[in-house]
Amino acid sequence: MIYMDNAATSWPKPPCVYRAVLDCMKNTGANPGRSGHSMAIAAGNLILHTRELIAKFFSIDDPFRIIFTANTTESLNLGIKGILKAGDHVITTTMEHNSVVRPLKQLECSGIELTFVKCDENGILDPDLIKRAIKPNTKLIVTTHASNVIGSILPIEEISKIAREYELIYLVDIAQTAGIIPINVNKHNIHMLAFPGHKGLLGPQGTGGLYIAPGIELMQLKEGGTGSLSESIYQPYILPDRYESGTLNTPGIAGLGAGLEFLLRPDTTDMIDNMRKLEMYFLDSITKIKGVKVYGPREPNKRVGAISINIGNRDSAEISNLLDQEYDIATRGELHCAPLAHDTINTLNQGTVRFSLGLFTTIADINKCIEAIYNIAKKI
Amino acid sequence: MIYMDNAATSWPKPPCVYRAVLDCMKNTGANPGRSGHSMAIAAGNLILHTRELIAKFFSIDDPFRIIFTANTTESLNLGIKGILKAGDHVITTTMEHNSVVRPLKQLECSGIELTFVKCDENGILDPDLIKRAIKPNTKLIVTTHASNVIGSILPIEEISKIAREYELIYLVDIAQTAGIIPINVNKHNIHMLAFPGHKGLLGPQGTGGLYIAPGIELMQLKEGGTGSLSESIYQPYILPDRYESGTLNTPGIAGLGAGLEFLLRPDTTDMIDNMRKLEMYFLDSITKIKGVKVYGPREPNKRVGAISINIGNRDSAEISNLLDQEYDIATRGELHCAPLAHDTINTLNQGTVRFSLGLFTTIADINKCIEAIYNIAKKI
Repeated sequence: MIYMDNAATSWPKPPCVYRAVLDCMKNTGANPGRSGHSMAIAAGNLILHTRELIAKFFSIDDPFRIIFTANTTESLNLGIKGILKAGDHVITTTMEHNSVVRPLKQLECSGIELTFVKCDENGILDPDLIKRAIKPNTKLIVTTHASNVIGSILPIEEISKIAREYELIYLVDIAQTAGIIPINVNKHNIHMLAFPGHKGLLGPQGTGGLYIAPGIELMQLKEGGTGSLSESIYQPYILPDRYESGTLNTPGIAGLGAGLEFLLRPDTTDMIDNMRKLEMYFLDSITKIKGVKVYGPREPNKRVGAISINIGNRDSAEISNLLDQEYDIATRGELHCAPLAHDTINTLNQGTVRFSLGLFTTIADINKCIEAIYNIAKKI
Repeated sequence: MIYMDNAATSWPKPPCVYRAVLDCMKNTGANPGRSGHSMAIAAGNLILHTRELIAKFFSIDDPFRIIFTANTTESLNLGIKGILKAGDHVITTTMEHNSVVRPLKQLECSGIELTFVKCDENGILDPDLIKRAIKPNTKLIVTTHASNVIGSILPIEEISKIAREYELIYLVDIAQTAGIIPINVNKHNIHMLAFPGHKGLLGPQGTGGLYIAPGIELMQLKEGGTGSLSESIYQPYILPDRYESGTLNTPGIAGLGAGLEFLLRPDTTDMIDNMRKLEMYFLDSITKIKGVKVYGPREPNKRVGAISINIGNRDSAEISNLLDQEYDIATRGELHCAPLAHDTINTLNQGTVRFSLGLFTTIADINKCIEAIYNIAKKI
């Protein structure tokens, strides 16, 4: 099988990730932070090690300001619901995933004010539109770093400058870019960074996180046992405990640590560069096929990851199914949990066939994909 | 090492659990419910299979009313916060874990009314006290099935009868009993059942769930991508999607499925019976050691799991540390995230040394524990 669905979850993972998960379950299977015995301490150290690797990866000064969550969706819910109160205004864009849109639409029912800034047909955002949307009650800007539908990159540095100028909080969703485009929270002046563990960071499913900058105080989504201040019937305020109630996904976090170590190896940069070159080669090649419509920007500095196409007027689910059944190519058809983005690029009815490469995608894989698309397009 | 910390998380898991997690990551590593390709469908089927096993295990008619969560704490937060509104009254007990107490204390700040019904010094609850605590605005009763500190069993059948009589909702926390004491949600008339995946059900950490009976409608904690109704910017109302936003912990859930299959084998019942006999043997033996105080009920039908002791007036953390360092026995000392329970049994200052057996605990392990306790007590 040729796996072209890395925007949903990366696969395969590097072998070190599988080993780390297995090794944790077999040899460090205690509950971290709950007991004082040697194996519980070793499990706690595994968690700490991954927290420190994430800090290193995103240039975060204090690893304890990184909160482990079950996935980016939980991270975004914590960041959004933790900061907004009735009467607050929030600005977002039309390229967002439903993990941003749906919590915001929910909060709208309880009195927050919401502005969607419109991106162009290529998913490109003019940062001036953000500036113009600011009101006296604006508290938060939340944007994706890159579209999960067409891979268009949003200008997070410009947006963060605007946030700084107007003293707003900026939450960035890096579901599609974590592990692929370098992020420095200090340089980029990001207040909250929501990331998945199981996509570009190469960890297992069931992992994600939220970085919360100093000075930002969020209301927690959940309270419960934290292993700390066990004598108190109130949620402790110390980080990360305040936001990490209940037993963590220790094997998953150990696997995420191994994924990060793999990414931090010097030669992995070459693999990422190679993947991005393959993306451009694929994009250029399929653009030339008659009957194929490719969405989103073409310039390498304006796009990353997800490549969405349609073939004639054919239903995207049908094409995706054909690719799976006849060519053993795994893609995603229909809508990609981002209806406003599909509306922006005018594919709300047809959906798109999405191809997303991974670190282990080869040129042979890409050539087979090009050939498959060519063969399908020829018959239409 | 002799692992006596199964109340925190079970270890080791049966080998089939490790294999299932690894096999899922390597061979079924796609995102379930998100794409239509073969591996995504296979991942979806793994999730469904575990959901069906849980339904079978707790006699739940509709597997889609089982919600996967990250842990019992999240399940309890969803059950508690999803149902209570300002002005509602809720009844709970003094034997609860902080995963029940802390969300309730948090909600108290926003206008819910809270009654703690007091258990006796052995952690035994008189169900009449629940009945007497009912007010016109009572909406929910939430209790643990068994104490995580001393293993005392609460009378959930009697409480559920009271709930039925007064048309109240009953949420049961089976963190300590899932997989050990059979539960039938229909027979027991339980409206919500919060369970861990990683304790008695033998799955990996990072798994848990909440069963929601028909007719019970909860507000969700999180919104986001569900893979369903992708065209909508609002959270779908269908179950389980409404409560399962974001990518699930597929390898963890696959491992939980293997744990459940292990539990459903006919000969596993013998292992559970044997474990409970070992618990009683251990309890009886240490009760006879001079200087050792054992907490909680002694009758096999009134207790399960956690066995808490103290030796003289010595700090429980110190004893637990001694057991770890000198005898290679893993226990938990201090407070066990349940301050009201410690208050009830008068150990708020000293804490307790908690021993908790697992399916793979042997009589040789127990004898070594008895010997260690004897040796320590002798010197005091």
